[in-house]
Amino acid sequence: MKKIVFLRHGESEWNKENRFTGWTDVDLSDKGKKEAWHAGEELIKNGFIFNRAYTSYLKRAIKTLNIVLDCMNQDWLKVEKDWRLNEKHYGILQGLNKAETAQEYGEDQVKRWRRSYDIAPPALSDDDPRNPKFDTRYREIPRDELPTTESLQDTVIRCMPYWDHVIFPSLKTDEQILIVAHGNSLRGIIKNLKNISDNDIAEFNIPTGVPYVFEFDEKNNLIRDYYLGDQEEIDRQIASVRNQGLANH
Amino acid sequence: MKKIVFLRHGESEWNKENRFTGWTDVDLSDKGKKEAWHAGEELIKNGFIFNRAYTSYLKRAIKTLNIVLDCMNQDWLKVEKDWRLNEKHYGILQGLNKAETAQEYGEDQVKRWRRSYDIAPPALSDDDPRNPKFDTRYREIPRDELPTTESLQDTVIRCMPYWDHVIFPSLKTDEQILIVAHGNSLRGIIKNLKNISDNDIAEFNIPTGVPYVFEFDEKNNLIRDYYLGDQEEIDRQIASVRNQGLANH
Repeated sequence: MKKIVFLRHGESEWNKENRFTGWTDVDLSDKGKKEAWHAGEELIKNGFIFNRAYTSYLKRAIKTLNIVLDCMNQDWLKVEKDWRLNEKHYGILQGLNKAETAQEYGEDQVKRWRRSYDIAPPALSDDDPRNPKFDTRYREIPRDELPTTESLQDTVIRCMPYWDHVIFPSLKTDEQILIVAHGNSLRGIIKNLKNISDNDIAEFNIPTGVPYVFEFDEKNNLIRDYYLGDQEEIDRQIASVRNQGLANH
Repeated sequence: MKKIVFLRHGESEWNKENRFTGWTDVDLSDKGKKEAWHAGEELIKNGFIFNRAYTSYLKRAIKTLNIVLDCMNQDWLKVEKDWRLNEKHYGILQGLNKAETAQEYGEDQVKRWRRSYDIAPPALSDDDPRNPKFDTRYREIPRDELPTTESLQDTVIRCMPYWDHVIFPSLKTDEQILIVAHGNSLRGIIKNLKNISDNDIAEFNIPTGVPYVFEFDEKNNLIRDYYLGDQEEIDRQIASVRNQGLANH
């Protein structure tokens, strides 16, 4: 049975501080590191030996992957990093505290930016130091492909070519694939795999640090999907992500 | 100026215990992790922004690289792992305490295995659980290329195709390359770059955790090579590696 495992990175320093993160390169918190190690233990328990892993250009996803591979003694695994798996870009909101943002722009406006499928926050200006064009890691990416803000739809649209042309085709030769990424880039891929509607995807919540397994048949058709671990605990986490709302970003 | 930086992994748990390590997948000690972080700081101080990194299939080199990239905030760097950068394979000596080995085989014999260019320790038998053919990470490597023991010459011979056909050609497009590997695989590459004789290479000592920079001109000719950091401290470390002798392996 071919398997792709999706893993959302563990808690970051800014999740704790309730700030919009997006493409800001924030480190894992200690809790986030523990979540990553625990994910590795679940994967060992279920006998996974991966052929390949994919992750984003952001430290919190890459370090989650490194900790999982360390825990599994699969440090040697081939890893491909790509900016297309990055979190949704949050435009001018990046770095701002979420409560303050609600005060400045009004709760309704912030809710639209967070929850609608196709409305993006205002874009970063051309000379904003947070503009990705100033960040060395993106120097080889064509300037007009780099976002300065994104709606969830924009995130989905920029993720999909990487899924369609790189990750999914590798399932032909690789039996077991691990993808460590972010709440919204994973939503993009899973929306497509499970045919989730534009309306429903924003309410589809993925808990951090819980391996989410997708099984495929010989023709790469999706057979079933399930989380690894204690189901009650996972349900509690999904509900908690939904109730926090803002913690998704 | 094009630059390749060689970095020997930090101290491992078995360096401390004075055991032959070779292809055994031993973790870094706490001291080794600190050495790696310090190497990252030296690289930042000297303004390095790498285009690509290479490392072996062994945890102590991979984790040294991960720590360096974390320290430099270059976690996003493209990394290629290859078994050809692994440490010299130590045959039946792998896992044995070095003092006990000297007692069993005699000091002269052990010295020959350690110090000669072309004499290898006895090979692992076909059913020895330490035989690399039983290790998942090597499952895609042709069986007849996997060593069961190696002389330093064997290590050099198996490293060089990877250097000649993968690493060195990437200097055409990548200005700055980082290679994190092992005492003997780095010896193999550096022997070739600096035209060191078979006799002299075994006495060529590389300190752990000190970035060793090689500069190349536009035609990829070697211009000069030097260590980063405090020169007196580095000289002391090189002398200490030489005096320990066994710590190389």
